Amino acid sequence: MTRTSASGDAVDVEVVLYDGFDELDGVGPYEVFETAGAFVAEGDGGIRVRTVTLDGREWVTASHGLRIGVDGTLGTPDLLVVPGGGWNAGDDRPGARREAERGAIPEAIRGLADEGVTVAAVCTGGMLLAEAGILDGRPAVTHASALDDLRATDADVVDARVVDDGDVLTAGGITSGLDLALHLVRRYCGTDVAERVATELEYDADPSRVFVAGEADE
Amino acid sequence: MTRTSASGDAVDVEVVLYDGFDELDGVGPYEVFETAGAFVAEGDGGIRVRTVTLDGREWVTASHGLRIGVDGTLGTPDLLVVPGGGWNAGDDRPGARREAERGAIPEAIRGLADEGVTVAAVCTGGMLLAEAGILDGRPAVTHASALDDLRATDADVVDARVVDDGDVLTAGGITSGLDLALHLVRRYCGTDVAERVATELEYDADPSRVFVAGEADE
Repeated sequence: MTRTSASGDAVDVEVVLYDGFDELDGVGPYEVFETAGAFVAEGDGGIRVRTVTLDGREWVTASHGLRIGVDGTLGTPDLLVVPGGGWNAGDDRPGARREAERGAIPEAIRGLADEGVTVAAVCTGGMLLAEAGILDGRPAVTHASALDDLRATDADVVDARVVDDGDVLTAGGITSGLDLALHLVRRYCGTDVAERVATELEYDADPSRVFVAGEADE
Repeated sequence: MTRTSASGDAVDVEVVLYDGFDELDGVGPYEVFETAGAFVAEGDGGIRVRTVTLDGREWVTASHGLRIGVDGTLGTPDLLVVPGGGWNAGDDRPGARREAERGAIPEAIRGLADEGVTVAAVCTGGMLLAEAGILDGRPAVTHASALDDLRATDADVVDARVVDDGDVLTAGGITSGLDLALHLVRRYCGTDVAERVATELEYDADPSRVFVAGEADE
Protein backbone atom coordinates (compact mmCIF):
# COMPACT_ATOMS: atom_id res chain seq x y z
CA MET A 1 0.00 0.00 0.00
CA THR A 2 1.21 3.49 -0.80
CA ARG A 3 -0.09 6.34 1.30
CA THR A 4 -1.12 9.28 -0.82
CA SER A 5 -3.03 12.40 0.00
CA ALA A 6 -6.78 11.91 0.00
CA SER A 7 -8.57 14.52 -2.09
CA GLY A 8 -8.68 17.78 -0.16
CA ASP A 9 -6.11 16.67 2.43
CA ALA A 10 -2.63 18.08 2.34
CA VAL A 11 0.32 15.75 1.79
CA ASP A 12 2.28 15.60 5.05
CA VAL A 13 6.02 15.73 4.42
CA GLU A 14 8.61 15.18 7.12
CA VAL A 15 12.31 15.88 6.54
CA VAL A 16 14.28 13.80 9.04
CA LEU A 17 17.34 15.63 10.31
CA TYR A 18 20.42 14.38 12.17
CA ASP A 19 23.75 15.91 13.16
CA GLY A 20 25.95 16.11 10.08
CA PHE A 21 23.16 16.10 7.48
CA ASP A 22 24.01 18.21 4.44
CA GLU A 23 22.29 21.61 4.67
CA LEU A 24 21.09 21.84 1.05
CA ASP A 25 20.01 18.18 0.98
CA GLY A 26 17.40 19.11 3.55
CA VAL A 27 16.70 22.80 2.96
CA GLY A 28 16.29 22.46 -0.84
CA PRO A 29 13.38 19.99 -0.73
CA TYR A 30 11.95 21.75 2.36
CA GLU A 31 11.68 25.05 0.49
CA VAL A 32 10.31 23.41 -2.68
CA PHE A 33 7.53 21.67 -0.71
CA GLU A 34 6.75 24.71 1.43
CA THR A 35 6.55 26.93 -1.65
CA ALA A 36 4.25 24.42 -3.37
CA GLY A 37 2.04 24.31 -0.28
CA ALA A 38 1.68 28.08 -0.32
CA PHE A 39 0.64 27.97 -4.00
CA VAL A 40 -2.20 25.49 -3.49
CA ALA A 41 -5.50 26.98 -2.33
CA GLU A 42 -6.82 26.08 1.13
CA GLY A 43 -8.95 22.92 0.88
CA ASP A 44 -7.39 21.85 -2.42
CA GLY A 45 -4.92 19.49 -0.83
CA GLY A 46 -1.44 20.87 -1.10
CA ILE A 47 1.61 20.08 0.95
CA ARG A 48 2.66 20.63 4.55
CA VAL A 49 6.30 20.16 5.46
CA ARG A 50 8.20 20.08 8.74
CA THR A 51 11.63 19.13 10.03
CA VAL A 52 11.83 16.24 12.49
CA THR A 53 14.31 14.12 14.41
CA LEU A 54 13.90 10.70 16.01
CA ASP A 55 14.42 12.20 19.45
CA GLY A 56 12.90 15.45 20.63
CA ARG A 57 15.43 18.21 19.95
CA GLU A 58 15.29 21.93 19.36
CA TRP A 59 17.96 22.04 16.67
CA VAL A 60 20.53 20.02 14.73
CA THR A 61 24.01 20.98 13.55
CA ALA A 62 24.39 20.25 9.84
CA SER A 63 27.56 19.10 8.03
CA HIS A 64 28.74 22.62 7.15
CA GLY A 65 28.16 23.93 10.65
CA LEU A 66 24.76 25.56 10.16
CA ARG A 67 22.26 25.00 12.96
CA ILE A 68 18.74 24.20 11.76
CA GLY A 69 15.63 24.24 13.93
CA VAL A 70 13.58 21.08 14.42
CA ASP A 71 9.77 21.23 14.37
CA GLY A 72 9.04 17.95 16.13
CA THR A 73 9.62 14.22 16.28
CA LEU A 74 9.19 11.72 13.46
CA GLY A 75 5.57 10.72 12.97
CA THR A 76 3.84 8.83 10.16
CA PRO A 77 3.89 11.27 7.25
CA ASP A 78 2.73 10.65 3.69
CA LEU A 79 6.26 11.35 2.49
CA LEU A 80 9.53 11.00 4.38
CA VAL A 81 12.54 12.91 3.01
CA VAL A 82 15.97 11.59 4.07
CA PRO A 83 18.90 13.93 3.43
CA GLY A 84 22.47 12.68 3.22
CA GLY A 85 25.68 14.33 4.34
CA GLY A 86 29.11 13.54 5.73
CA TRP A 87 29.19 10.06 4.16
CA ASN A 88 32.93 10.27 3.66
CA ALA A 89 33.59 11.88 7.06
CA GLY A 90 33.91 8.43 8.65
CA ASP A 91 31.60 6.65 11.06
CA ASP A 92 33.04 8.44 14.11
CA ARG A 93 31.96 11.83 12.73
CA PRO A 94 28.39 13.12 12.54
CA GLY A 95 26.70 12.24 9.27
CA ALA A 96 24.92 9.61 7.21
CA ARG A 97 27.59 6.92 7.66
CA ARG A 98 27.45 7.23 11.46
CA GLU A 99 23.64 7.03 11.29
CA ALA A 100 23.92 3.93 9.08
CA GLU A 101 26.18 2.36 11.73
CA ARG A 102 23.88 3.36 14.60
CA GLY A 103 20.87 1.90 12.83
CA ALA A 104 18.06 3.88 14.45
CA ILE A 105 17.25 5.97 11.36
CA PRO A 106 17.43 2.98 8.94
CA GLU A 107 15.13 1.07 11.33
CA ALA A 108 12.65 3.96 11.37
CA ILE A 109 12.80 4.21 7.57
CA ARG A 110 12.12 0.48 7.27
CA GLY A 111 9.17 0.72 9.64
CA LEU A 112 7.59 3.64 7.79
CA ALA A 113 8.15 1.99 4.39
CA ASP A 114 6.40 -1.13 5.73
CA GLU A 115 3.46 1.09 6.70
CA GLY A 116 3.23 2.42 3.14
CA VAL A 117 4.95 5.76 3.63
CA THR A 118 6.68 7.03 0.48
CA VAL A 119 10.40 7.44 1.18
CA ALA A 120 12.57 9.87 -0.79
CA ALA A 121 16.32 10.19 -0.21
CA VAL A 122 18.66 12.96 -1.33
CA CYS A 123 22.37 12.36 -1.88
CA THR A 124 23.89 9.86 0.58
CA GLY A 125 20.53 9.68 2.33
CA GLY A 126 20.16 6.88 -0.23
CA MET A 127 22.75 4.89 1.73
CA LEU A 128 20.45 5.05 4.76
CA LEU A 129 17.67 3.59 2.57
CA ALA A 130 20.08 0.86 1.43
CA GLU A 131 20.95 0.14 5.08
CA ALA A 132 17.20 -0.07 5.76
CA GLY A 133 17.01 -2.75 3.06
CA ILE A 134 14.38 -0.91 1.03
CA LEU A 135 16.59 -0.49 -2.06
CA ASP A 136 17.19 -4.23 -2.49
CA GLY A 137 16.54 -5.12 -6.13
CA ARG A 138 15.30 -1.62 -6.87
CA PRO A 139 16.64 1.18 -9.09
CA ALA A 140 18.40 3.94 -7.16
CA VAL A 141 21.06 6.62 -7.23
CA THR A 142 23.14 8.59 -4.68
CA HIS A 143 25.93 11.18 -4.53
CA ALA A 144 28.71 10.43 -7.04
CA SER A 145 31.19 9.88 -4.19
CA ALA A 146 29.04 7.05 -2.76
CA LEU A 147 28.05 5.29 -6.00
CA ASP A 148 30.59 2.49 -5.43
CA ASP A 149 29.17 1.94 -1.94
CA LEU A 150 25.66 1.83 -3.39
CA ARG A 151 26.77 -0.63 -6.11
CA ALA A 152 28.07 -2.88 -3.31
CA THR A 153 24.49 -3.20 -2.00
CA ASP A 154 21.58 -5.01 -3.64
CA ALA A 155 20.35 -1.78 -5.25
CA ASP A 156 20.27 -1.46 -9.04
CA VAL A 157 22.24 1.75 -9.65
CA VAL A 158 20.80 4.00 -12.37
CA ASP A 159 22.56 6.90 -14.08
CA ALA A 160 20.02 9.65 -13.43
CA ARG A 161 19.58 12.75 -11.31
CA VAL A 162 16.32 11.46 -9.81
CA VAL A 163 15.11 7.85 -9.68
CA ASP A 164 11.38 7.34 -9.07
CA ASP A 165 10.45 3.76 -8.20
CA GLY A 166 6.97 4.61 -6.97
CA ASP A 167 7.05 4.52 -3.19
CA VAL A 168 10.85 4.77 -3.02
CA LEU A 169 12.70 7.64 -4.68
CA THR A 170 16.35 8.61 -4.64
CA ALA A 171 18.33 11.56 -5.98
CA GLY A 172 21.96 12.21 -6.79
CA GLY A 173 24.11 14.70 -4.90
CA ILE A 174 23.01 17.76 -2.94
CA THR A 175 21.30 20.09 -5.45
CA SER A 176 19.55 17.15 -7.14
CA GLY A 177 17.27 17.25 -4.09
CA LEU A 178 15.64 20.26 -5.76
CA ASP A 179 14.85 18.14 -8.82
CA LEU A 180 13.57 15.31 -6.63
CA ALA A 181 11.23 17.63 -4.75
CA LEU A 182 10.00 19.33 -7.93
CA HIS A 183 9.31 15.88 -9.40
CA LEU A 184 7.28 14.95 -6.32
CA VAL A 185 5.39 18.27 -6.41
CA ARG A 186 4.50 17.40 -10.01
CA ARG A 187 3.20 14.01 -8.81
CA TYR A 188 1.24 15.38 -5.86
CA CYS A 189 0.06 18.78 -7.13
CA GLY A 190 0.40 18.64 -10.91
CA THR A 191 2.69 20.13 -13.51
CA ASP A 192 1.33 23.67 -13.20
CA VAL A 193 2.21 23.94 -9.50
CA ALA A 194 5.63 22.34 -10.07
CA GLU A 195 6.41 24.81 -12.85
CA ARG A 196 5.25 27.71 -10.71
CA VAL A 197 7.59 26.59 -7.92
CA ALA A 198 10.53 26.23 -10.35
CA THR A 199 9.78 29.72 -11.70
CA GLU A 200 9.63 31.16 -8.17
CA LEU A 201 12.96 29.50 -7.31
CA GLU A 202 14.39 30.48 -10.74
CA TYR A 203 15.57 26.90 -11.05
CA ASP A 204 16.00 25.12 -14.38
CA ALA A 205 15.11 21.53 -13.59
CA ASP A 206 15.98 18.99 -16.27
CA PRO A 207 13.13 16.43 -16.44
CA SER A 208 15.19 14.38 -18.92
CA ARG A 209 17.44 13.42 -16.00
CA VAL A 210 14.52 11.92 -14.04
CA PHE A 211 14.24 8.12 -14.35
CA VAL A 212 10.77 6.77 -13.68
CA ALA A 213 10.69 2.99 -13.27
CA GLY A 214 8.42 1.33 -15.81
CA GLU A 215 8.41 4.28 -18.20
CA ALA A 216 11.86 3.34 -19.48
CA ASP A 217 10.48 0.02 -20.74
CA GLU A 218 7.59 1.56 -22.64
CA MET B 1 39.27 50.51 -2.20
CA THR B 2 38.13 46.93 -2.49
CA ARG B 3 39.03 44.60 0.34
CA THR B 4 40.35 41.30 -0.93
CA SER B 5 42.03 38.46 0.80
CA ALA B 6 45.73 39.01 1.32
CA SER B 7 47.80 36.05 0.14
CA GLY B 8 47.55 33.29 2.70
CA ASP B 9 44.62 34.86 4.56
CA ALA B 10 41.16 33.40 4.25
CA VAL B 11 38.38 35.51 2.75
CA ASP B 12 35.96 36.32 5.54
CA VAL B 13 32.36 36.00 4.37
CA GLU B 14 29.37 37.07 6.44
CA VAL B 15 25.80 36.20 5.43
CA VAL B 16 23.50 38.73 7.10
CA LEU B 17 20.23 37.15 8.21
CA TYR B 18 16.93 38.71 9.26
CA ASP B 19 13.46 37.37 10.00
CA GLY B 20 11.77 36.49 6.72
CA PHE B 21 14.94 35.98 4.65
CA ASP B 22 14.56 33.25 2.04
CA GLU B 23 16.15 30.01 3.25
CA LEU B 24 17.92 29.06 0.00
CA ASP B 25 19.05 32.65 -0.66
CA GLY B 26 21.20 32.31 2.45
CA VAL B 27 21.92 28.59 2.76
CA GLY B 28 22.93 28.13 -0.91
CA PRO B 29 25.83 30.61 -0.86
CA TYR B 30 26.73 29.59 2.73
CA GLU B 31 27.23 25.97 1.65
CA VAL B 32 29.12 26.91 -1.52
CA PHE B 33 31.57 29.08 0.44
CA GLU B 34 31.94 26.58 3.28
CA THR B 35 32.61 23.76 0.81
CA ALA B 36 35.20 25.88 -1.01
CA GLY B 37 36.88 26.70 2.30
CA ALA B 38 37.17 23.00 3.11
CA PHE B 39 38.79 22.35 -0.28
CA VAL B 40 41.56 24.92 0.14
CA ALA B 41 44.58 23.78 2.11
CA GLU B 42 45.36 25.42 5.46
CA GLY B 43 47.56 28.49 4.89
CA ASP B 44 46.59 28.79 1.23
CA GLY B 45 43.92 31.38 1.83
CA GLY B 46 40.51 29.92 1.33
CA ILE B 47 37.19 31.09 2.66
CA ARG B 48 35.57 31.32 6.08
CA VAL B 49 31.82 31.89 6.27
CA ARG B 50 29.44 32.64 9.12
CA THR B 51 25.87 33.77 9.60
CA VAL B 52 25.32 37.10 11.33
CA THR B 53 22.60 39.55 12.33
CA LEU B 54 22.81 43.23 13.21
CA ASP B 55 21.73 42.49 16.77
CA GLY B 56 22.97 39.60 18.86
CA ARG B 57 20.54 36.71 18.37
CA GLU B 58 20.71 32.94 18.61
CA TRP B 59 18.52 32.21 15.60
CA VAL B 60 16.32 33.74 12.91
CA THR B 61 13.04 32.48 11.41
CA ALA B 62 13.26 32.41 7.61
CA SER B 63 10.46 33.10 5.13
CA HIS B 64 9.37 29.46 4.83
CA GLY B 65 9.36 28.93 8.58
CA LEU B 66 12.76 27.29 8.99
CA ARG B 67 14.80 28.46 11.98
CA ILE B 68 18.48 29.05 11.21
CA GLY B 69 21.21 29.53 13.82
CA VAL B 70 23.20 32.75 13.94
CA ASP B 71 26.97 32.66 14.53
CA GLY B 72 27.46 36.26 15.64
CA THR B 73 26.93 39.93 14.91
CA LEU B 74 27.85 41.77 11.73
CA GLY B 75 31.54 42.71 11.63
CA THR B 76 33.71 43.99 8.79
CA PRO B 77 34.08 40.98 6.50
CA ASP B 78 35.82 40.86 3.12
CA LEU B 79 32.51 39.87 1.54
CA LEU B 80 28.98 40.55 2.77
CA VAL B 81 26.20 38.35 1.37
CA VAL B 82 22.68 39.80 1.56
CA PRO B 83 19.83 37.33 0.98
CA GLY B 84 16.35 38.44 -0.07
CA GLY B 85 12.99 37.02 0.85
CA GLY B 86 9.40 38.02 1.47
CA TRP B 87 9.63 41.09 -0.78
CA ASN B 88 6.01 40.71 -1.84
CA ALA B 89 4.80 39.84 1.66
CA GLY B 90 4.26 43.54 2.42
CA ASP B 91 6.18 45.83 4.75
CA ASP B 92 4.26 44.71 7.85
CA ARG B 93 5.49 41.12 7.39
CA PRO B 94 9.04 39.89 8.06
CA GLY B 95 11.23 40.09 4.99
CA ALA B 96 13.36 42.25 2.74
CA ARG B 97 10.70 44.93 2.17
CA ARG B 98 10.23 45.43 5.91
CA GLU B 99 14.02 45.67 6.33
CA ALA B 100 14.15 48.21 3.48
CA GLU B 101 11.51 50.28 5.36
CA ARG B 102 13.31 49.93 8.70
CA GLY B 103 16.60 51.05 7.18
CA ALA B 104 19.08 49.50 9.61
CA ILE B 105 20.34 46.81 7.20
CA PRO B 106 20.59 49.21 4.21
CA GLU B 107 22.51 51.64 6.46
CA ALA B 108 24.90 48.85 7.52
CA ILE B 109 25.37 47.81 3.87
CA ARG B 110 26.15 51.40 2.91
CA GLY B 111 28.67 51.71 5.72
CA LEU B 112 30.48 48.49 4.81
CA ALA B 113 30.51 49.38 1.09
CA ASP B 114 32.06 52.74 2.01
CA GLU B 115 34.77 50.82 3.88
CA GLY B 116 35.56 48.78 0.76
CA VAL B 117 33.71 45.60 1.67
CA THR B 118 32.50 43.67 -1.38
CA VAL B 119 28.70 43.34 -1.21
CA ALA B 120 26.82 40.51 -2.96
CA ALA B 121 23.03 40.25 -2.91
CA VAL B 122 20.86 37.28 -3.78
CA CYS B 123 17.29 37.68 -5.02
CA THR B 124 15.43 40.62 -3.44
CA GLY B 125 18.47 41.21 -1.26
CA GLY B 126 19.29 43.42 -4.25
CA MET B 127 16.47 45.74 -3.22
CA LEU B 128 18.26 46.27 0.12
CA LEU B 129 21.37 47.27 -1.85
CA ALA B 130 19.21 49.65 -3.92
CA GLU B 131 17.79 51.11 -0.69
CA ALA B 132 21.39 51.53 0.53
CA GLY B 133 22.06 53.57 -2.62
CA ILE B 134 24.94 51.39 -3.76
CA LEU B 135 23.26 50.31 -7.01
CA ASP B 136 22.78 53.85 -8.31
CA GLY B 137 24.01 53.97 -11.91
CA ARG B 138 25.31 50.41 -11.68
CA PRO B 139 24.30 47.17 -13.45
CA ALA B 140 22.19 44.86 -11.27
CA VAL B 141 19.52 42.17 -11.21
CA THR B 142 17.03 40.76 -8.67
CA HIS B 143 14.21 38.20 -8.41
CA ALA B 144 11.88 38.36 -11.43
CA SER B 145 8.99 39.47 -9.20
CA ALA B 146 10.93 42.57 -8.09
CA LEU B 147 12.47 43.62 -11.42
CA ASP B 148 9.92 46.44 -11.88
CA ASP B 149 10.76 47.73 -8.40
CA LEU B 150 14.48 47.59 -9.26
CA ARG B 151 13.84 49.40 -12.58
CA ALA B 152 12.16 52.17 -10.56
CA THR B 153 15.48 52.82 -8.78
CA ASP B 154 18.65 54.29 -10.29
CA ALA B 155 20.06 50.82 -10.96
CA ASP B 156 20.73 49.71 -14.54
CA VAL B 157 18.84 46.41 -14.76
CA VAL B 158 20.66 43.66 -16.68
CA ASP B 159 19.13 40.42 -17.99
CA ALA B 160 21.49 37.92 -16.36
CA ARG B 161 21.54 35.34 -13.59
CA VAL B 162 24.55 36.98 -11.91
CA VAL B 163 25.77 40.57 -12.34
CA ASP B 164 29.37 41.26 -11.27
CA ASP B 165 30.21 44.95 -11.04
CA GLY B 166 33.43 44.44 -9.13
CA ASP B 167 32.75 45.34 -5.51
CA VAL B 168 28.96 45.07 -5.89
CA LEU B 169 27.36 41.87 -7.18
CA THR B 170 23.73 40.86 -7.53
CA ALA B 171 21.94 37.66 -8.52
CA GLY B 172 18.46 36.78 -9.75
CA GLY B 173 16.01 34.72 -7.73
CA ILE B 174 16.73 32.17 -5.02
CA THR B 175 18.80 29.39 -6.67
CA SER B 176 20.84 31.93 -8.63
CA GLY B 177 22.59 32.52 -5.31
CA LEU B 178 24.41 29.25 -6.01
CA ASP B 179 25.71 30.70 -9.30
CA LEU B 180 26.68 33.95 -7.57
CA ALA B 181 28.64 32.12 -4.89
CA LEU B 182 30.34 29.81 -7.39
CA HIS B 183 31.31 32.88 -9.44
CA LEU B 184 32.84 34.47 -6.34
CA VAL B 185 34.66 31.24 -5.42
CA ARG B 186 36.14 31.34 -8.94
CA ARG B 187 37.28 34.93 -8.29
CA TYR B 188 38.73 34.26 -4.84
CA CYS B 189 40.03 30.68 -5.17
CA GLY B 190 40.30 30.01 -8.89
CA THR B 191 38.43 27.96 -11.45
CA ASP B 192 39.66 24.59 -10.19
CA VAL B 193 38.20 25.09 -6.71
CA ALA B 194 34.94 26.48 -8.13
CA GLU B 195 34.58 23.48 -10.41
CA ARG B 196 35.33 21.11 -7.55
CA VAL B 197 32.59 22.76 -5.47
CA ALA B 198 30.08 22.55 -8.35
CA THR B 199 30.97 18.86 -8.80
CA GLU B 200 30.53 18.20 -5.07
CA LEU B 201 27.14 19.95 -5.12
CA GLU B 202 26.27 18.24 -8.44
CA TYR B 203 25.21 21.66 -9.70
CA ASP B 204 25.34 22.67 -13.35
CA ALA B 205 26.15 26.36 -13.21
CA ASP B 206 25.77 28.26 -16.47
CA PRO B 207 28.66 30.76 -16.73
CA SER B 208 27.08 32.21 -19.90
CA ARG B 209 24.41 33.74 -17.65
CA VAL B 210 26.99 35.66 -15.59
CA PHE B 211 27.37 39.32 -16.65
CA VAL B 212 30.73 40.83 -15.73
CA ALA B 213 30.79 44.62 -16.13
CA GLY B 214 33.47 45.73 -18.57
CA GLU B 215 33.81 42.36 -20.25
CA ALA B 216 30.65 42.98 -22.28
CA ASP B 217 32.28 45.98 -23.96
CA GLU B 218 35.42 44.14 -24.98
